[in-house]
Amino acid sequence: MADKHALLMIPGPIEFSDNVLKAMSHPSVSHVAPAFAKVFGENLTLLRQIFLTTAPDSQPFVVSGSGTMGWDFVAANMVEPGEHVLVLHTGYFADSFAECFECYGVQPTQLKAPIGSRPSLEEIEKALQQKKYKMITITHTDTSTGVLSDVKGVSALVKRVSPDTLICVDGVCSIACEELRFDEWGVDVALTASQKALGTPAGLCVLMVSGRGMQAYQTRKTPPATYFASFKRWLPIMQAYEQQTAKYFATPAVQLVYALNASLKEILQESMDTRFKQHADASDYVKAELTKMGLKQLAVDPAFAAHGMTAVYTPNNMPVSEWMPKLASKGVVFAGGLHKEIATKYFRIGHMGVSVLDKSRGDLETALTAIREALKEIGYSA
Amino acid sequence: MADKHALLMIPGPIEFSDNVLKAMSHPSVSHVAPAFAKVFGENLTLLRQIFLTTAPDSQPFVVSGSGTMGWDFVAANMVEPGEHVLVLHTGYFADSFAECFECYGVQPTQLKAPIGSRPSLEEIEKALQQKKYKMITITHTDTSTGVLSDVKGVSALVKRVSPDTLICVDGVCSIACEELRFDEWGVDVALTASQKALGTPAGLCVLMVSGRGMQAYQTRKTPPATYFASFKRWLPIMQAYEQQTAKYFATPAVQLVYALNASLKEILQESMDTRFKQHADASDYVKAELTKMGLKQLAVDPAFAAHGMTAVYTPNNMPVSEWMPKLASKGVVFAGGLHKEIATKYFRIGHMGVSVLDKSRGDLETALTAIREALKEIGYSA
Repeated sequence: MADKHALLMIPGPIEFSDNVLKAMSHPSVSHVAPAFAKVFGENLTLLRQIFLTTAPDSQPFVVSGSGTMGWDFVAANMVEPGEHVLVLHTGYFADSFAECFECYGVQPTQLKAPIGSRPSLEEIEKALQQKKYKMITITHTDTSTGVLSDVKGVSALVKRVSPDTLICVDGVCSIACEELRFDEWGVDVALTASQKALGTPAGLCVLMVSGRGMQAYQTRKTPPATYFASFKRWLPIMQAYEQQTAKYFATPAVQLVYALNASLKEILQESMDTRFKQHADASDYVKAELTKMGLKQLAVDPAFAAHGMTAVYTPNNMPVSEWMPKLASKGVVFAGGLHKEIATKYFRIGHMGVSVLDKSRGDLETALTAIREALKEIGYSA
Repeated sequence: MADKHALLMIPGPIEFSDNVLKAMSHPSVSHVAPAFAKVFGENLTLLRQIFLTTAPDSQPFVVSGSGTMGWDFVAANMVEPGEHVLVLHTGYFADSFAECFECYGVQPTQLKAPIGSRPSLEEIEKALQQKKYKMITITHTDTSTGVLSDVKGVSALVKRVSPDTLICVDGVCSIACEELRFDEWGVDVALTASQKALGTPAGLCVLMVSGRGMQAYQTRKTPPATYFASFKRWLPIMQAYEQQTAKYFATPAVQLVYALNASLKEILQESMDTRFKQHADASDYVKAELTKMGLKQLAVDPAFAAHGMTAVYTPNNMPVSEWMPKLASKGVVFAGGLHKEIATKYFRIGHMGVSVLDKSRGDLETALTAIREALKEIGYSA
């Protein structure tokens, strides 16, 4: 059982199960030991179930790093210098992903929406008709704003008006809590990090690439300008591990791989559909309670609101620097604002993984009670 | 106490102390929490002691990844496309480092030596006189061969004949077990990974860059072609954390950072000089015992042999595929060969960290006994 600690209700790192934390202290094992190769291989196979892909040419990657490094993998391997990418902007993370593309000589065009909103399908269609884009990127849940993108709708649109355009989903705050049907929706690459709804401590970058996505890499004209974040180096390693044999490029994070295994097995005790619904239900509940408290969400339409987190304006426009300590004094840790234009005016609540699924923990109630008490303390009422 | 497991005596990952493994299962904490920022900041400060640098403009980096990613940091930030780098070759890892430079458009020239040997100071001097090199790279201990480079001698030579050339030490298998005096020897960048003599599970890339090294980055003419492995992105983060305040670029591997803290504090209970001597003494002992057993080392001269590992030819030219299972049956895990030309003909023994320092574990004796028993089983005698 995890030591007593302040409940962590931020949009990642999330709370981890005792099993996962126990796996983190796995005794030292060689990264090429058969027992370890088996666990690594299992992870890759289980990730196919998490992403809802059965296509044999889908390719999972698990590499030491972070979600941010997933952008390097995409920008360095799947698109080439001079090519154009349409970046749908729903918050901070689109700006950063666009910067990442620029590092690799790729030309991003951002399609922006007001804070709390998202580009409409009509605007996206218009943009796709104006230029030939090699790739479109969708931040499924932008962790800075809690805005949810309509990946299904956007993917269908892309298939209709620009079918050659690769579809990239930044799923850092969505994979394993938000509905994503990799095969059915025709996604070409979805990336995430271990410390969000995958329920594993930070330190792993996770990607799923479609057969078409790998094809784009294999037929590129210029070599990728990266050594570590390279499909070329990691593909044979992932293929070997999924066969449960070891191959060396760089030493994987052995203990994190064990922890991921513990978490993936916990996650897959129920169907992904059940898991998506449990997160949606918990999110509806949290959001309804926050509304009852008189707090206003950033998402301007309930359909634009993510299910793994909620971004909420502070009461009475209280500066977040004043509001956060009041919450912290209740023994629960929330996150401050991250979108630079309004960072001082809102806070963020994470509700993913065991905090949602393991009702015996009572995490949601503890979090909501902390907010209610802090509001009471400042005499705020709905 | 770590669960019962086969003793791991490979040149990384090494065995970890119970304290370090316990820190790995630290309850979830926000990557921007003050308590976490304090621990991360301490790590950066303690690393200065590990690298023996007191120069205020030295800059430590700790980033999720692996030792291999340290090459990307060097190649992408400290040298520019078209510039020349002299790569001293003492095994497999120089080939890979050279490939990494090529990915970034940098021109590596490898100076090779026969297996088990290293380029002489005379050869290096000649090479430095033939071309203007922006950087020279030295693999301190090549993990594939166990060959030790003379970093002190090479550095002094570079200062004399090509003082503008930056000195890069790949210290993956040397930092914290092999004598390295960052300031005194004038090293500009030394990189390592957590799972070797730093005694922390795999998943962290660690670098120390000199003021001159940072200057080379700051005055470059072309922007670095990387997003994640970028000084630009990580420098403000490291500066903030060392001030024990948090700043966000990508979520750090929180639990690994706690584990590194536990290990660095254990390491620094004694002086680095004592630690170097303890590793040298253990290495001398292991090598003497192996010689008594009639086993021949790869290093052609004792002065060329690393102190954190030993590479040894199999008895009677037995294929390593036959020899390794015999060792494994004794409950100790060693590593096979890695240098492609002779991979099937030798094996490797790691002796770093707690296996050397914590005599109560008896790891060295257990390892040597396993080898003795395997030799007895095949009827081999010196």
